[in-house]
Amino acid sequence: MSEELKIGLVSISDRASTGVYEDKGIPALKEWFDAALASPWRLESRLIPDEQPIIEATLIELCDRAGCHLVLTTGGTGPAPRDVTPEATLAVADKVLPGFGEQMRAVSLKYVPTAILSRQVGVVRGKALILNLPGQPKAIKETLDGVFAAVPYCLDLIGGPYVETREDVVKAFRPKSAVKPAG
Amino acid sequence: MSEELKIGLVSISDRASTGVYEDKGIPALKEWFDAALASPWRLESRLIPDEQPIIEATLIELCDRAGCHLVLTTGGTGPAPRDVTPEATLAVADKVLPGFGEQMRAVSLKYVPTAILSRQVGVVRGKALILNLPGQPKAIKETLDGVFAAVPYCLDLIGGPYVETREDVVKAFRPKSAVKPAG
Amino acid sequence: MSEELKIGLVSISDRASTGVYEDKGIPALKEWFDAALASPWRLESRLIPDEQPIIEATLIELCDRAGCHLVLTTGGTGPAPRDVTPEATLAVADKVLPGFGEQMRAVSLKYVPTAILSRQVGVVRGKALILNLPGQPKAIKETLDGVFAAVPYCLDLIGGPYVETREDVVKAFRPKSAVKPAG
Repeated sequence: MSEELKIGLVSISDRASTGVYEDKGIPALKEWFDAALASPWRLESRLIPDEQPIIEATLIELCDRAGCHLVLTTGGTGPAPRDVTPEATLAVADKVLPGFGEQMRAVSLKYVPTAILSRQVGVVRGKALILNLPGQPKAIKETLDGVFAAVPYCLDLIGGPYVETREDVVKAFRPKSAVKPAG
Repeated sequence: MSEELKIGLVSISDRASTGVYEDKGIPALKEWFDAALASPWRLESRLIPDEQPIIEATLIELCDRAGCHLVLTTGGTGPAPRDVTPEATLAVADKVLPGFGEQMRAVSLKYVPTAILSRQVGVVRGKALILNLPGQPKAIKETLDGVFAAVPYCLDLIGGPYVETREDVVKAFRPKSAVKPAG
Repeated sequence: MSEELKIGLVSISDRASTGVYEDKGIPALKEWFDAALASPWRLESRLIPDEQPIIEATLIELCDRAGCHLVLTTGGTGPAPRDVTPEATLAVADKVLPGFGEQMRAVSLKYVPTAILSRQVGVVRGKALILNLPGQPKAIKETLDGVFAAVPYCLDLIGGPYVETREDVVKAFRPKSAVKPAG
């Protein structure tokens, strides 16, 4: 059987982290993964404010100590002064994958013209892929539907577990040269 | 009534700034805003050469002292050695909004394959949004038609005035959660 | 007659550079240029491992000493730890042209969803344009077919020779204001 995929979810919101507002990002993500993944996985969740040092420390903890292979943030990617998720993500990155930011915006632009304002990025830190997602449940689902096909092969390349998806939700793409490890 | 939108226009061209060549960027921009804006606005214009320190100083003056909420540059975004508008814009930026550069190029690519060569960026400095536009009047209009729908909501988020557009020219998009301030 | 276009080709692969694996990038590039170019050209080729200092030194040598106007790399643009071609290219760049990376990924995305993982960039160093291409012959051809229309005008702008293409393969685009030098 495949190694378990460990997913870190980080909801970044001043209001949600102080309880003023109910977090909707983590439940939306959990629902998406319940439907999409066919191989074993489990979650680590965090609810934190829009403070760059706290976001950086949380990403480092999830990648380096909790052993997450995939870390998804929600919220904090807009142009407002308190939106610092991309800055924090870039600060802890080993490699930036500009295609994720481009494609996540291109997907969202099909729904709303203000998708252009999102500064979301995708980066590699060690053996983890970190992706910034929007804050709204609908936009989270649209974005993951649009880019997740490339995530399993990315995890293969950076040393993560072999992830399988339910093809009716999202079909993982791997080149023919990619080999599934003996289980 | 809404607070007036203060727009800075900066035409960047060695030839136009010395009078060798008539500037066509600022008239094209003025015509576009005349047609597109429904709420009050006024312009500050500058005509300067392709010198990075002068461009930076002009952008800083328009954002920090003249109180512009929106600053648009034309010219100087190509690959030639004298093209330094993006470098100057990034040097004065607080936040980069990569979606503007991507989408302005994507819009222009529908018209000319050489749109790929444009290095235009969109950034936030303090409470101002700065966008680099192409130098040709036709390309200026195409670009603004393609991205301006997201500008009013961006200005809301960074603390600018509530901007309204003429919907037959361009329809400003705001999420349902955005509220128009009492007038 | 036009000045000869000097093209540097750099195949970046640990396995190909040690002979474990036959390089397919340089033959694919040569075949593409044989079909596409109508004005005179010649090639300089290099086969090197995925070592950032060696890639940087090779790019500098081809641009600054061998006098190449156009340098194309293949391989080393993915998210894996040994993939460092974009880092090396950015380290020797005078100007980054983000439109090339965006458009090369957009073109490849029409064929494979994992194109999102490519970190390829286009930059100017002195009077040379450097483009990172994928490693697979099929993807090299698709990418050049998708972006080369803008390359001749880019070379005009940075001081290179006037390049002409065979229009049945790729039609070079120049604005009407661009003038062909007297031959």
